[in-house]
Amino acid sequence: MKQPVPRVAVPRLTLYLQCLEDLPAGMGRISSEDLASRAGVNSAKVRKDLSYLGSYGVRGVGYDAEHLRFQIRRELGLTREWPLVIVGVGNLGRALANYGGFHEKGFRVVGIFDDDPNKVGTRVGEHRVEPVAALPDVVRERQARIGVIATPPEEAQLVAEMLAAAGVAAILNFAPTVVRVPAHVAVRRADFSTELQVLAFHLHQGTAG
Amino acid sequence: MKQPVPRVAVPRLTLYLQCLEDLPAGMGRISSEDLASRAGVNSAKVRKDLSYLGSYGVRGVGYDAEHLRFQIRRELGLTREWPLVIVGVGNLGRALANYGGFHEKGFRVVGIFDDDPNKVGTRVGEHRVEPVAALPDVVRERQARIGVIATPPEEAQLVAEMLAAAGVAAILNFAPTVVRVPAHVAVRRADFSTELQVLAFHLHQGTAG
Repeated sequence: MKQPVPRVAVPRLTLYLQCLEDLPAGMGRISSEDLASRAGVNSAKVRKDLSYLGSYGVRGVGYDAEHLRFQIRRELGLTREWPLVIVGVGNLGRALANYGGFHEKGFRVVGIFDDDPNKVGTRVGEHRVEPVAALPDVVRERQARIGVIATPPEEAQLVAEMLAAAGVAAILNFAPTVVRVPAHVAVRRADFSTELQVLAFHLHQGTAG
Repeated sequence: MKQPVPRVAVPRLTLYLQCLEDLPAGMGRISSEDLASRAGVNSAKVRKDLSYLGSYGVRGVGYDAEHLRFQIRRELGLTREWPLVIVGVGNLGRALANYGGFHEKGFRVVGIFDDDPNKVGTRVGEHRVEPVAALPDVVRERQARIGVIATPPEEAQLVAEMLAAAGVAAILNFAPTVVRVPAHVAVRRADFSTELQVLAFHLHQGTAG
């Protein structure tokens, strides 16, 4: 009987997926111990997490790596493609727009936006920068489900409201500020300092590693 | 009696800290309900989390916002400054090196590195790009504790090993690959697709928001 995946296991599933994608070509099988070692997670936890997918390794044989990748991608909802838009074309927005891995990870950039007249109309990678005023129409027409905020913090709240009103279901916020949106929109913080602060806590407490 | 902060509460503390930093100037007190609403967390959990800091609001009065900021920063180890180095000066490395908030967040960039001869010696913000070969000496001399990897994925493992050997205690890895380092070095993944995959899971499961 397949149990639902607990929320806390989801980041680990993304970690296992990355480990599986990093495997040398032609490596068809992987043991839970090997996957555990690559992921830096203990192997009992790996087996437990994979059991949520209905995936059980064969003793002495391990898991079929490609099937396991498929199962994780299916569970995470990555066997379809999620259209996303990026707002803010500074260095970070450029890095995001040029990020080559989106397609294989299950995402597709369908629009990038900035209000700087020197940027509107220019190309970044394969995308042309559009004015922020065009955001609502683009989100609707191209059915973007995710909005990525890469603006300065003072513009983030307004952009979040525009994205929510235009109908995105989720927002990834790189701006160092907390945005407030209606409860039906999921928000994750991704600003640089958050991850660094979590690391600092572990260093400070001497619990690193 | 002050209890240790559980690991799962640490990201929430960074969230409360950001909410407190976002408060309008002159707002001296905040209730747990107001903080909860800004953070998108229920107020009982906010009070519980803050109790780990030994901080209890006064009924009808709330918390002193500045003292609460101090308590969170102290608990996270942010009342000192953590020297860090950044390896990789693409768009992401530039965004990181130019990120204005490091100082106030408790971090200081003490070196940025790239192996591209067209980049070595150029300035990015207030920093001059140094060759990766200089990394070990710089980490030791400037006592960097954190290394940030912003290289292409195929270079990330080697850079992680250099950082660990040079003596950093923690690594923040933006490259879309899993790096393996000795157990005494803490690693956090920060690649774009991980956060997006967690969002996709919630959209897929209909558990967003």
